[in-house]
Amino acid sequence: MSHTLEELASYVGGRVEGDAGCVIENVASLTSANSRHLSFYTGGKHNTAFANTNAGAVILSEKHVGVSSINCIVVNNPSLAFALIAEKLNPVEKLSGVHPDASVESGANIDATAYVGPQCAIAAGVQIKAGAVIGAGCVIGKNCVIGEGSRLNANVTLNDKTIIGQNVIIHSGAVIGSDGFGMANDEGRWVKVPQLGGVVIGNDVEIGANTTIDCGALDDTVIGNGVKLDNQIQIAHNVQIGDHTAIAGCVGIAGSTVIGRHCTIAGGVGIVGQIEIVDNVHITVASIVTQSITSSGAYSSGTPLQENTTWQRNFVRFRQLDDMAKRLKKVEKQLKK
Amino acid sequence: MSHTLEELASYVGGRVEGDAGCVIENVASLTSANSRHLSFYTGGKHNTAFANTNAGAVILSEKHVGVSSINCIVVNNPSLAFALIAEKLNPVEKLSGVHPDASVESGANIDATAYVGPQCAIAAGVQIKAGAVIGAGCVIGKNCVIGEGSRLNANVTLNDKTIIGQNVIIHSGAVIGSDGFGMANDEGRWVKVPQLGGVVIGNDVEIGANTTIDCGALDDTVIGNGVKLDNQIQIAHNVQIGDHTAIAGCVGIAGSTVIGRHCTIAGGVGIVGQIEIVDNVHITVASIVTQSITSSGAYSSGTPLQENTTWQRNFVRFRQLDDMAKRLKKVEKQLKK
Amino acid sequence: MSHTLEELASYVGGRVEGDAGCVIENVASLTSANSRHLSFYTGGKHNTAFANTNAGAVILSEKHVGVSSINCIVVNNPSLAFALIAEKLNPVEKLSGVHPDASVESGANIDATAYVGPQCAIAAGVQIKAGAVIGAGCVIGKNCVIGEGSRLNANVTLNDKTIIGQNVIIHSGAVIGSDGFGMANDEGRWVKVPQLGGVVIGNDVEIGANTTIDCGALDDTVIGNGVKLDNQIQIAHNVQIGDHTAIAGCVGIAGSTVIGRHCTIAGGVGIVGQIEIVDNVHITVASIVTQSITSSGAYSSGTPLQENTTWQRNFVRFRQLDDMAKRLKKVEKQLKK
Repeated sequence: MSHTLEELASYVGGRVEGDAGCVIENVASLTSANSRHLSFYTGGKHNTAFANTNAGAVILSEKHVGVSSINCIVVNNPSLAFALIAEKLNPVEKLSGVHPDASVESGANIDATAYVGPQCAIAAGVQIKAGAVIGAGCVIGKNCVIGEGSRLNANVTLNDKTIIGQNVIIHSGAVIGSDGFGMANDEGRWVKVPQLGGVVIGNDVEIGANTTIDCGALDDTVIGNGVKLDNQIQIAHNVQIGDHTAIAGCVGIAGSTVIGRHCTIAGGVGIVGQIEIVDNVHITVASIVTQSITSSGAYSSGTPLQENTTWQRNFVRFRQLDDMAKRLKKVEKQLKK
Repeated sequence: MSHTLEELASYVGGRVEGDAGCVIENVASLTSANSRHLSFYTGGKHNTAFANTNAGAVILSEKHVGVSSINCIVVNNPSLAFALIAEKLNPVEKLSGVHPDASVESGANIDATAYVGPQCAIAAGVQIKAGAVIGAGCVIGKNCVIGEGSRLNANVTLNDKTIIGQNVIIHSGAVIGSDGFGMANDEGRWVKVPQLGGVVIGNDVEIGANTTIDCGALDDTVIGNGVKLDNQIQIAHNVQIGDHTAIAGCVGIAGSTVIGRHCTIAGGVGIVGQIEIVDNVHITVASIVTQSITSSGAYSSGTPLQENTTWQRNFVRFRQLDDMAKRLKKVEKQLKK
Repeated sequence: MSHTLEELASYVGGRVEGDAGCVIENVASLTSANSRHLSFYTGGKHNTAFANTNAGAVILSEKHVGVSSINCIVVNNPSLAFALIAEKLNPVEKLSGVHPDASVESGANIDATAYVGPQCAIAAGVQIKAGAVIGAGCVIGKNCVIGEGSRLNANVTLNDKTIIGQNVIIHSGAVIGSDGFGMANDEGRWVKVPQLGGVVIGNDVEIGANTTIDCGALDDTVIGNGVKLDNQIQIAHNVQIGDHTAIAGCVGIAGSTVIGRHCTIAGGVGIVGQIEIVDNVHITVASIVTQSITSSGAYSSGTPLQENTTWQRNFVRFRQLDDMAKRLKKVEKQLKK
């Protein structure tokens, strides 16, 4: 599938600088591209790669026009334009039908344009809507709904009554609708509290590999539209995540916490249960959130990496921090006199 | 399945305040309950929901009687009573037999009252005891034993010779009995140390989605009775966890560490290898445990979340903490003179 | 399979102290060994176990000869010798052929000496080389290559075009080649950037249970020869890991980061994206790496575990650290005058 630079520029609403007839077959990075490839450049540490690229053309923004004589598509948002063109040049394969090695219970309702791969187990009452794709080895529990155009990669597990919206992508090993961690204590012994809620996933959501989302205890766990979840995220029962929030890998969110819209949460962050985080909050890498966040903005916790011997000295002193604060105050008082 | 409030109160050893004949069909949260629902109230942040609930009745403790005129079941431990009633009203479906789409090696011993779901692979020498349920897509390696009444949800993996007690629940994606991370170093190259031990799981254990428990190097990894493990926990080889300890999501425990009974370990905690933690220890969210804990009590590490700009200033100062401590001491000495 | 101590000593290039004809059937720990078992001793906390062992013989180094009168194999590197003997006495079972309950697309190329287990799904274009073993329930996407002698345990997922070298071991639940977390922002909405690269895994690599390795965005994600990865590690798109680096459980590495050779990274470490870490770097437990590391050595971050009440006091003071530093400076100035 090849296109002229003109056609691709027009597709993303950009203009061509250079040879508009240049033929592009695919996208590639600046370093691995050849003359049939389109690459992209956003400045910064990629200057050398840009100067030396063999790409046929590069997508960039107005401010980088003229830095090089290479053919360009000039747009306001090069990352977005690149994403759209990469998708156009690499369409996802269309599949339909139920593989003969799938196991489908009677009473499952699979649209004729949907696909169910080999080694899947689809329970009764499941609805798989038009154009949805269920990869090999997926297990879909009773009464789940998979919306139009959604795609489950291989070995995804949906427990009973999970509701998935449209155009959702779920990566391998993800588990949606597992029981929440709810227990009552009976004189030292833990008694399971049945987890009776469901999980409701909005439209245009992406869920990473081996991410887990527990069902609600009574009401549902809710993931908003356009939410993007990376790999190995843990989302406990009754969490609510607002639309268009993006969460990087290895984040854990404890039960009943409500996260706003358009938040970004970096990798390794931990968030305790029963709190609220408003819209447009940005939490930096590996921070621990122990209270509600009531104003938008960026938040952080943690200490800097140091060479081990130096760190040891500071690490030990942390134990004396309160003591130091009191002694400092005392010193200040003495000096005042 | 409906019951009068009287019947339910009697089931949990409570007393009714209000209409003992009120018919209850299921449980629900205070906010979503209707007149056929039983809810529960433990005070605190749920006051408004309690005041406005449409529930037919509410479980609560003596101290909250009279706060509202709603029908009540009064008990000492509302969470426990609610758990028991929720389970009574939502019994787990009984299944038995081997699904025709399961793959069972000859020499596996499956009780007639047990169930094996579609797309399972059951190896030779496996014993699946009375009433056990193996969900779709599970793989059970050689010589594993699954005790009476235990339930594996979909896509669980048990490696060879894993021993599971009675009434255990294992959630989807969990992997039990994978090789421990044992290596010898041969002049810079790592040589695998064969992992020859097993995993022994007690009775009444619950293991969360995508949690991993490695087999022992030589002796077994041991999980005590009544232990509750949330999602995405990593338990390394030869760890021992004492009875009735509960561990929240995303915790990692390194090799050969021994954890006592009745401990609680919050989400995101990391525990190094080869240490011992006594009974009744409580570790708070995301703490890092680098030494044995020899007294019961609560333990913590970590720094507070702050607005990013303020945090940056304190973050940088952490590097000077030892220096600050020395300078403070010097100042104190000078003042003494 | 039994051997004399003489034969085993000769196998690892060691010498016997004591009865060279002593017959050894297997390896065991010092505490569980009987007279037919070989154990090993490296000093330290195992002194009591060593003094009381019933083992037939023990592997140890020169410095521990004579501590006990037990039969010994004396070698320079007891851990390595033990690993080699343990493997010799516990050979991995040879399997070959395609299980009738596997689902293999036409166009997959499976060597006659390789094995494919039940409930696997093998896509078109896959190459499974001589002696490779694919455990039950694995899903292998299009055009993947699994090198000679490599072993995938049960329920592993390889997405399309993942390349696995020779003698690689991948544990259950691992997902290789899932999409990287790449998105462009379109006025508040996230647009997926197609992830078009692959994953290339070298020879002699081990990958732990439920570990995830994303495919590259354009170029490949690359794991070097001899790399050892523990369970529940997350490796983002375009990460490169140098030969013979070992990474413990629950580590997260963000996109495009390059890690050198012979590094060791302890459990729970987080490493941000787009940085470089040179060879021979050792990062201690749960440290957070936010910048490139340009010199070999050991690095750490974090604060000490404390009894909760004491910790609370220091935790709060961290917020004042910059303020304290400024006040200390002021005090020093005043004293100078």
